[in-house]
Amino acid sequence: MQTLEHIGIAVKSLQTAIPLYKTLLNTTCYKTETVESEKVNTAFFQTGEAKVELLESTDPEGVIARYIEKRGEGLHHIAFEVADIHAEMKRLEDAGLRLLNPVPKRGADNKLVCFIHPASTGGVLMEICQTVPENLP
Amino acid sequence: MQTLEHIGIAVKSLQTAIPLYKTLLNTTCYKTETVESEKVNTAFFQTGEAKVELLESTDPEGVIARYIEKRGEGLHHIAFEVADIHAEMKRLEDAGLRLLNPVPKRGADNKLVCFIHPASTGGVLMEICQTVPENLP
Repeated sequence: MQTLEHIGIAVKSLQTAIPLYKTLLNTTCYKTETVESEKVNTAFFQTGEAKVELLESTDPEGVIARYIEKRGEGLHHIAFEVADIHAEMKRLEDAGLRLLNPVPKRGADNKLVCFIHPASTGGVLMEICQTVPENLP
Repeated sequence: MQTLEHIGIAVKSLQTAIPLYKTLLNTTCYKTETVESEKVNTAFFQTGEAKVELLESTDPEGVIARYIEKRGEGLHHIAFEVADIHAEMKRLEDAGLRLLNPVPKRGADNKLVCFIHPASTGGVLMEICQTVPENLP
């Protein structure tokens, strides 16, 4: 079984969204992090076992900026923690599902991540992720 | 702090989506339930502490059918469990946020629920919910 790790929400501005989500979720943002490779600034809120991750684009051509342009702000993806991301990617591919990256890549929050194409999930951008030791490069 | 309770995903057909999500999440659907008042059939998967709830409309004019018509299948709402839904509704209203129902209503999975308008949340349909004792009417 996979464990829901976080929900990614596309926002135009973290400066606006962080205080809003602090009010909505009744908890403070515990971390912000920039992921250069994904062209996003992220902000995290702990909501029980799972997290809410706000995503702001750092680039007008970035994936989050393009998403907002097309669909508006809102729910962007859901992520599930797995014990072994390579084994899980193989399991999904063997089941005929389409992955968006053929090898795991570095995401926010010290994770190796892989996205599954929404065409393989009934319209949901789904991520699987595995926490990596802090001392790995 | 609120705890992420479930993610609601709009699907055209549970018959198609249940086996797909069984493959994706690597776990079985543990419950299906019809909520007449909301015109939906639901199917639940446990993914750690939080659940994935698939939503299929029972009516072409239902809220899920209209959502899919407008936006396609995909992420529909996120729900947070709270200890006291009345107190939480008051806290959100006092903060100037717009609720979609003025009093809690019965949802799936033995919950009292209230939805927050996406205009108050940066585009996310957000639900708060409170588990009620099984023996209440």
